[in-house]
Amino acid sequence: MSPYQELESRFKRMAALGEAAGMLHWDMSVLMPPAGADARVEQLSALQLTTHEMKTDPALADLLDAAEALSDDDPWRVANLREMRRSWVHANAVDADLVDAMTRASSACEMVWREARPENDFARVLPYLEEVLNLSIQTAAAKAEALDRSPYEALLDQYEPDGRTDRIDALFADLSDFLPGFLDTALSRQAARGEGVLPEGPFPADKQRTLGERLMGALGFDFDAGRLDVSLHPFCGGVPGDVRITTRYTDEDFTQSLMGVLHETGHALYEMGLPADWRYQPVGSARGMALHESQSLLIEMQACRSREYLEFAAPLMRETFNGNGPAWEVDNLYRLYTKVDRSFIRVDADEVTYPAHVILRYRLERALIGGDMKLVDLPGAWNDGMEELLGIRPPEDRLGCLQDIHWYDGAWGYFPTYTMGAMAAAQLFAAAQETHPDIPDAISTGDFAPLVGWMRENLHTRASSGSTDQLLQAATGKPLGTDAFKAHLEARYG
Amino acid sequence: MSPYQELESRFKRMAALGEAAGMLHWDMSVLMPPAGADARVEQLSALQLTTHEMKTDPALADLLDAAEALSDDDPWRVANLREMRRSWVHANAVDADLVDAMTRASSACEMVWREARPENDFARVLPYLEEVLNLSIQTAAAKAEALDRSPYEALLDQYEPDGRTDRIDALFADLSDFLPGFLDTALSRQAARGEGVLPEGPFPADKQRTLGERLMGALGFDFDAGRLDVSLHPFCGGVPGDVRITTRYTDEDFTQSLMGVLHETGHALYEMGLPADWRYQPVGSARGMALHESQSLLIEMQACRSREYLEFAAPLMRETFNGNGPAWEVDNLYRLYTKVDRSFIRVDADEVTYPAHVILRYRLERALIGGDMKLVDLPGAWNDGMEELLGIRPPEDRLGCLQDIHWYDGAWGYFPTYTMGAMAAAQLFAAAQETHPDIPDAISTGDFAPLVGWMRENLHTRASSGSTDQLLQAATGKPLGTDAFKAHLEARYG
Repeated sequence: MSPYQELESRFKRMAALGEAAGMLHWDMSVLMPPAGADARVEQLSALQLTTHEMKTDPALADLLDAAEALSDDDPWRVANLREMRRSWVHANAVDADLVDAMTRASSACEMVWREARPENDFARVLPYLEEVLNLSIQTAAAKAEALDRSPYEALLDQYEPDGRTDRIDALFADLSDFLPGFLDTALSRQAARGEGVLPEGPFPADKQRTLGERLMGALGFDFDAGRLDVSLHPFCGGVPGDVRITTRYTDEDFTQSLMGVLHETGHALYEMGLPADWRYQPVGSARGMALHESQSLLIEMQACRSREYLEFAAPLMRETFNGNGPAWEVDNLYRLYTKVDRSFIRVDADEVTYPAHVILRYRLERALIGGDMKLVDLPGAWNDGMEELLGIRPPEDRLGCLQDIHWYDGAWGYFPTYTMGAMAAAQLFAAAQETHPDIPDAISTGDFAPLVGWMRENLHTRASSGSTDQLLQAATGKPLGTDAFKAHLEARYG
Repeated sequence: MSPYQELESRFKRMAALGEAAGMLHWDMSVLMPPAGADARVEQLSALQLTTHEMKTDPALADLLDAAEALSDDDPWRVANLREMRRSWVHANAVDADLVDAMTRASSACEMVWREARPENDFARVLPYLEEVLNLSIQTAAAKAEALDRSPYEALLDQYEPDGRTDRIDALFADLSDFLPGFLDTALSRQAARGEGVLPEGPFPADKQRTLGERLMGALGFDFDAGRLDVSLHPFCGGVPGDVRITTRYTDEDFTQSLMGVLHETGHALYEMGLPADWRYQPVGSARGMALHESQSLLIEMQACRSREYLEFAAPLMRETFNGNGPAWEVDNLYRLYTKVDRSFIRVDADEVTYPAHVILRYRLERALIGGDMKLVDLPGAWNDGMEELLGIRPPEDRLGCLQDIHWYDGAWGYFPTYTMGAMAAAQLFAAAQETHPDIPDAISTGDFAPLVGWMRENLHTRASSGSTDQLLQAATGKPLGTDAFKAHLEARYG
């Protein structure tokens, strides 16, 4: 075997072990009984330590050096080697003790956060969060040196490879100029035309599930290669060939769960469309969280909150729930699904206000990682930021800095990818429509083949063969920008 | 860390990886979508290879030598080291290529068998089974040398540590003398009193499930530490703290599924009762398949097919299915659950005829592993054996040598543990009643605490601290024997 072939074999093993861990995470979230938690921690910890040892094996470093010294004219192999090196750098920058300390501190903090949030008690979780932040700063410093970039960028790179703050700053500044004024416009227009009203329930969970599966099927989700289940926090897990999305149902409102299902289906379609030839190799994985989120938002926001989609879906909704009356008309459902609102909770926010939530978190986490702010000052800074960006002030921390799991769970540097994803979704949807102007018409008949087919060809099958900007350049003719996103907002809400 | 402590750490990691694989097996059997199979094979293969590499790491051999050279006065640590060595010998006796070839050949053969069995086509699966047998003989030879015993015993040792053919031969000879005559007696008695009749359905699966969960709960199954699900082939999987049993439901008959659930609950109670202090260590595991089967048969056969149990359970059955009439009376249900019959299929066989099925397989697999018989002669030899042992001749191979998965799946040397388990169950139940004569009365009120409590104290918590015979000696005052089993059959069927 050549050094490169030996690397492929080792990375395949590591990928398979990582997928095993992913499946065990899914099980933990969906159906594990409570007393199984201790054993599950041991299983996941054994998998993590084993993979970490494989990544820090000196022989792996020698193989990387040897393979990189040889020339290769296959761009996918070259890209694969580059992604192997990135993975190696991340793993070797931090020692096993720091990885282990981070895992333990995050788990402990997350558990306290789960109680502190409903109790509105930031002070209680503060010492745990201090520990997580402190270890994250150490991790950032170690990776910054290895990657030759800033500590914040080193954390960002874990979620968005090659993500750079100067690019994000410029994109977010552009949005910050545009959004406040646009939000006023959108709210006035909404006031003029009236808000949508929620159809009256109850909506039994089994019927919601049937509807969700039907609409997933229309999008191209293959139930021989995936599942829909229930978990407290909806997510997309599993692996290509066995993609597992989750949702949760409330009897009073089917619309939230349904859009959640469509959102996760977008993630799932990306995983289902990755190139089989590069399965288990780093280059064959999804590019990063910005493009992953672009695929969920493409389906949820661009496609499935459109009037065309509701023309297709409204009859199915009525049929499922025996609905009739004005609340079930396309026009009402469209107004409901495109409602704009200054609100406190990010995950419930609409497309127009969502970026403000992200920009706030991005500013705060950069200040905290950079040591420019103390955690004890976070609640006040959060509330000040909300007032500045959205004109509303959270009355309590569970509507403020206690709302998101990310920091408490150790995910620093993740937030900007949400809004990068929203921008990429708009850019990709616009480009797909340039090739296939009939996409909206097709959507109105439940035909997603033109949209998903374009995405397969121009994004999914390209996996991690280039950077986010390179992939967007190839697919849309330009790197990530704000134009398409602003145009989308103008068209829908302006 | 001392060599022993280092060993504990390494074996804990291997146990956790093994448990991860176990959970992935459960998922594969219960809910994995079909297209997930390839990825699952990669995950399980990566886990197996990784564990095999850890077990064959020369440093592990050095640690074992070093730990064994030191004296230790803690009997559990001594027993743990002995079990570590047994595990090491098994793993190091065969090289990775043979392990891999065996895994692949078994998977391929099992897949062909799944189609060949309903098609009654032994010839089709024969070449695959030849390959599995050939590799099993190679494995047996390698392990026989390492363990210093016969090839068949080396395979048996994988399922029943320290199992010896001379002991089994003597036990089985004793049963072979007793059973044919006893079977005639039991059948005459049954003819005289009349057979039980099956209550009339349909029995909806959700109600069967509710009843099963209720009866599991009465036995002490903790649903915070386990689950009941559905799979094609019922089994008990999972780990202590997260024990997962499965069943399957048919609308026409609730009695089969229910007894299956109780059987698997017996396995589950053993796992739930293993000593927490030795969790993840070889000595803390269940002793072997004979004692594991003893626990399922203790619950299913000894306890739950008793008249006392049906006094407790019959009203719950009636309540669940709104049953009334003579078919729902205790006496009828008891006759139904203790029906004796000369039949072709082992898994449907009653307590009296079951040993004949096992003795047949034990004879045949010893001859095949020993090279004294050719596979092409298996169907005829099977049918001759059935005629000799039970007086009936299978009219086709799916009722004969195609019925069991074991050989096709590579499990040679497993069969005798079923009947060893039946004997151990009777012996343990008798010993428990000597201490607590009120056990049958308690069972008639649904109180299993005296029985399960005795089992916890005298068997479960002792895990693998001794051999099967040592554990039985400590718990019942004698090594494995036939007396209690024969006495049980006499009392119930004679």
